[in-house]
Amino acid sequence: MSGRYLEDMVVGETRQLGSRSLSEDEIIAFALKFDPQPFHIDREAAARSHFGGIVASGWHSAATMMRVVVDRAMADGPGGFIGSPGFEDLRWLKAVRPGDTLNVTTTIAEVIPSTTKPDRGVVRTRSEVTNQHGEMVLTMNGKGMCLRRPGTA
Amino acid sequence: MSGRYLEDMVVGETRQLGSRSLSEDEIIAFALKFDPQPFHIDREAAARSHFGGIVASGWHSAATMMRVVVDRAMADGPGGFIGSPGFEDLRWLKAVRPGDTLNVTTTIAEVIPSTTKPDRGVVRTRSEVTNQHGEMVLTMNGKGMCLRRPGTA
Repeated sequence: MSGRYLEDMVVGETRQLGSRSLSEDEIIAFALKFDPQPFHIDREAAARSHFGGIVASGWHSAATMMRVVVDRAMADGPGGFIGSPGFEDLRWLKAVRPGDTLNVTTTIAEVIPSTTKPDRGVVRTRSEVTNQHGEMVLTMNGKGMCLRRPGTA
Repeated sequence: MSGRYLEDMVVGETRQLGSRSLSEDEIIAFALKFDPQPFHIDREAAARSHFGGIVASGWHSAATMMRVVVDRAMADGPGGFIGSPGFEDLRWLKAVRPGDTLNVTTTIAEVIPSTTKPDRGVVRTRSEVTNQHGEMVLTMNGKGMCLRRPGTA
């Protein structure tokens, strides 16, 4: 399958991109590096906290979503995405706990051809991450810069 | 020094929270786990890309900002922050490259006492991350849930 370029992005299209699980070891290892709050790294402190047990850093959940997105893009084949200028609105809705599986679904919200660079555009996306119980744990309204298929600009 | 609670948050207050450097090994290790695009993990592919060399995953830059924030909070002592519901608007403005040092500055934008839970409120923050050349690489408008000092609610 060839990769996806700007002209392949259809507003309203929803894709289930894949899923990935987080072990307690992974949750603690990430948090020790980037977010060493007690409820992410210390079982006893986490049990006493308002979470009632170890929970993943929200940044770990977000990075895990990114991994699913990138794995899917690589499976699609080389395509037009060349980076992201950032995003609007990321929400952490429910704690992610050891053993949870995160499922990522992304919908194309808007395709905005560049007015100055005819070979590219911005794709606005709505991503939703659910756990194995179908509960929404994270949502993000993102943006990606995407090239047109080579030779078509 | 005692920790910081909702009543310690002064709108307009700006704090330099600290800084942290990213090595090439760290950039590649993070990206192999969470964002294995060629320009994050492969020197030769990165050199051929529009970045011209290895750059950090934007999620790595964001997680590094979080580490600086958490280290500062821990140095302040136990305080009122109990988590974040998410944030509005994160922007990646400039690539982060091996050896770059990220400096984090946060300004209190708004303090919103809860109307339903008198022991807490939401603190809106504006965070700016600059590199060692003073260039802005990331900005984020964030939100944190923060308790009042115990016994004062």
